[in-house]
Amino acid sequence: MNTIDKAAGASDAKGSGSTEFEEGGIRVRRASMTFGPDEPLALDSGVNLSPFTITYETYGTLNAAKSNVVLICHALTGDQYAASTHPLSGKPGWWAHMVGPGRPIDTNRFFVICQNVIGGCMGTTGPRDIDPATGRPYGLSFPVITVGDMVRAQAMLLDRLGIHDLFCVIGGSMGGMQVLQWAAAYPERVFSAIPIATAARHSAQNIAFHEVGRQAIMADPEWKQGAYLSHGTNPAKGLAVARMAAHITYLSEPALHRKFGRNLQDRDAITYGFDADFQIESYLRHQGSTFVDRFDANSYLYITRAMDYFDLADDFGGVLANAFRGTTSRFCVVSFTSDWLFPTSDNRQIVHALNAVAANVSFVEIKTDKGHDAFLLDEPEMFTTLRGFIDSAARTRGLAG
Amino acid sequence: MNTIDKAAGASDAKGSGSTEFEEGGIRVRRASMTFGPDEPLALDSGVNLSPFTITYETYGTLNAAKSNVVLICHALTGDQYAASTHPLSGKPGWWAHMVGPGRPIDTNRFFVICQNVIGGCMGTTGPRDIDPATGRPYGLSFPVITVGDMVRAQAMLLDRLGIHDLFCVIGGSMGGMQVLQWAAAYPERVFSAIPIATAARHSAQNIAFHEVGRQAIMADPEWKQGAYLSHGTNPAKGLAVARMAAHITYLSEPALHRKFGRNLQDRDAITYGFDADFQIESYLRHQGSTFVDRFDANSYLYITRAMDYFDLADDFGGVLANAFRGTTSRFCVVSFTSDWLFPTSDNRQIVHALNAVAANVSFVEIKTDKGHDAFLLDEPEMFTTLRGFIDSAARTRGLAG
Repeated sequence: MNTIDKAAGASDAKGSGSTEFEEGGIRVRRASMTFGPDEPLALDSGVNLSPFTITYETYGTLNAAKSNVVLICHALTGDQYAASTHPLSGKPGWWAHMVGPGRPIDTNRFFVICQNVIGGCMGTTGPRDIDPATGRPYGLSFPVITVGDMVRAQAMLLDRLGIHDLFCVIGGSMGGMQVLQWAAAYPERVFSAIPIATAARHSAQNIAFHEVGRQAIMADPEWKQGAYLSHGTNPAKGLAVARMAAHITYLSEPALHRKFGRNLQDRDAITYGFDADFQIESYLRHQGSTFVDRFDANSYLYITRAMDYFDLADDFGGVLANAFRGTTSRFCVVSFTSDWLFPTSDNRQIVHALNAVAANVSFVEIKTDKGHDAFLLDEPEMFTTLRGFIDSAARTRGLAG
Repeated sequence: MNTIDKAAGASDAKGSGSTEFEEGGIRVRRASMTFGPDEPLALDSGVNLSPFTITYETYGTLNAAKSNVVLICHALTGDQYAASTHPLSGKPGWWAHMVGPGRPIDTNRFFVICQNVIGGCMGTTGPRDIDPATGRPYGLSFPVITVGDMVRAQAMLLDRLGIHDLFCVIGGSMGGMQVLQWAAAYPERVFSAIPIATAARHSAQNIAFHEVGRQAIMADPEWKQGAYLSHGTNPAKGLAVARMAAHITYLSEPALHRKFGRNLQDRDAITYGFDADFQIESYLRHQGSTFVDRFDANSYLYITRAMDYFDLADDFGGVLANAFRGTTSRFCVVSFTSDWLFPTSDNRQIVHALNAVAANVSFVEIKTDKGHDAFLLDEPEMFTTLRGFIDSAARTRGLAG
């Protein structure tokens, strides 16, 4: 078993179950739920995926009316550990700033759910898992999934938990795509929606960057046409290169300049060699090498592909506004000035579509030099914005402060 | 021998010589010059490289006063075939729009020289060549070179050819770095200088992209610690990934959107697979696969490293203006609005430094959505600008129209 296998009790230990503990003043429930042959996941590709398991975490307590549910949707390389210590990296949850007692997503007030997406590698069924048809890991025989499939699976888990209405669906980047998909596919279930640093369709440039990452993985001879688990190999080098390329796109040039510039790493002068002379090189290599300890190469292929395929208007006659026609959800769209992966213009297209159907929408462009990654960082203006929007929506919804 | 070896008669056929022919109304001389043990190239690293060969092309005729020389400096993946058909790809020269009879760099008027840079792979000595100390290809034992070294080698060739003064030194991207280096290191030899889409120092983001490319090459097991020629292997997959990642940075998001958008490649619907569903994917893969037929992986490492190391101010007490103090050269700095690799702000820093020493400088930012690659493309405003600047400088220099 590699490090990832030690995580959420993946491949060979599927099933429903949960453990509970308290961390940082939050009541954490770490759980998984399996859906058997009678409840397949009907994928957009036409394939019925069965059986499948969803791993998820909940924070806080569901109120009697079941009206205080916040669904957090994670990004490409995120997972269900939004607010609790990550079992592999030992680091705080990826949105620990955002979720907790007294934080914008206040766990004293809301019942928060975060699910690992279908196709993922932190316990939810994905290409690492055993294909019941062969008894071997799926690899590339895992069906290609979409953002629509991710959301459909999330809805099935909520149904199983007896939760119909979501007070709020929130997420950044690919998480924001899921938020939009939720609002379009299940408008009656979504009271409020917060898509952050995202787009209603993936741009050509973003598809291009994803394709480079996929080619880097597939070029690694240890990838073995996706069957590396059966071969006992690991395309870690290819995955690290993919991560490094992607990581540059998450940052901004001004932030890179401010943080690293042309500073040298632990040396006084250039070495006339290919070691990491510059801090930025050392930083990138570190990003690549730590990522491969917690992520699966095939999951990276499948999830990037789902993002490439995302084009919400396509399901609505090519007119994005049709995706939101008749919606009663209230929206808060957030973008960042220095985000060049999902620039403000992409987010503004969402706002325009919502305006075209007279939806209730706030739009905030936050000034920051931190690039796309700003949604994951301690960004005070984002917190203030989200706290205000969520508090106001909660009051309207009759949720006590 | 792989395709590259068939090119300029590299490794095993070093020496001085030339052939002449006419193409497209241009008198082309395709030549190489070898410098023996008595004339080593003194590198910035402290190493003396010897022997070494420079391959180059000339277009047009040197006038009696030797006052009509234009030196073209090529970019990272460019070569000496600026205006003649490339012997490997069969494509027109990379600057065929710019160089020729009646073109901005008019071969009826000027004697044009373009040299393959030291460290390159089109005949000039680089890591593919035989290390006389071992009898095997240099690989990683080739010394790390700098933009300063490239320019020093160019000056040695010009000296050998009996050419002292350059009417004009011109180049884009890394070619522009060489132009700046020429102006700083040999101010008395440079009558006019045209740095295009470049920077006086490589940014953290650009170092980061280069590092991703290098890691992609080094991750390829066929790279063999750089000794792939001795092993009979070829890190083509790694080099293709490096090229794909770099190629995205040469374009702009608007141009990608205009050219490709989310258009599908030879199909009506997405295939739910990892084939090149989108045109942009197919285009990128093509860019990767054609590049490896004409370029050497180790040269890619060495030349990207030279760009990373470029920081002209560093040689002048950290003050860029000092690099140009007392210059009598006239400069024309050109940038492109959609170039995010060498944005206008980088080019403007050069202009500010030139202004600080009261140099004769024109600065033009050209409005285009074609990104960094605009300097290689049919960009009418660039041609008009350069034609105007070059004609004016030629008149001042007393060169007949």
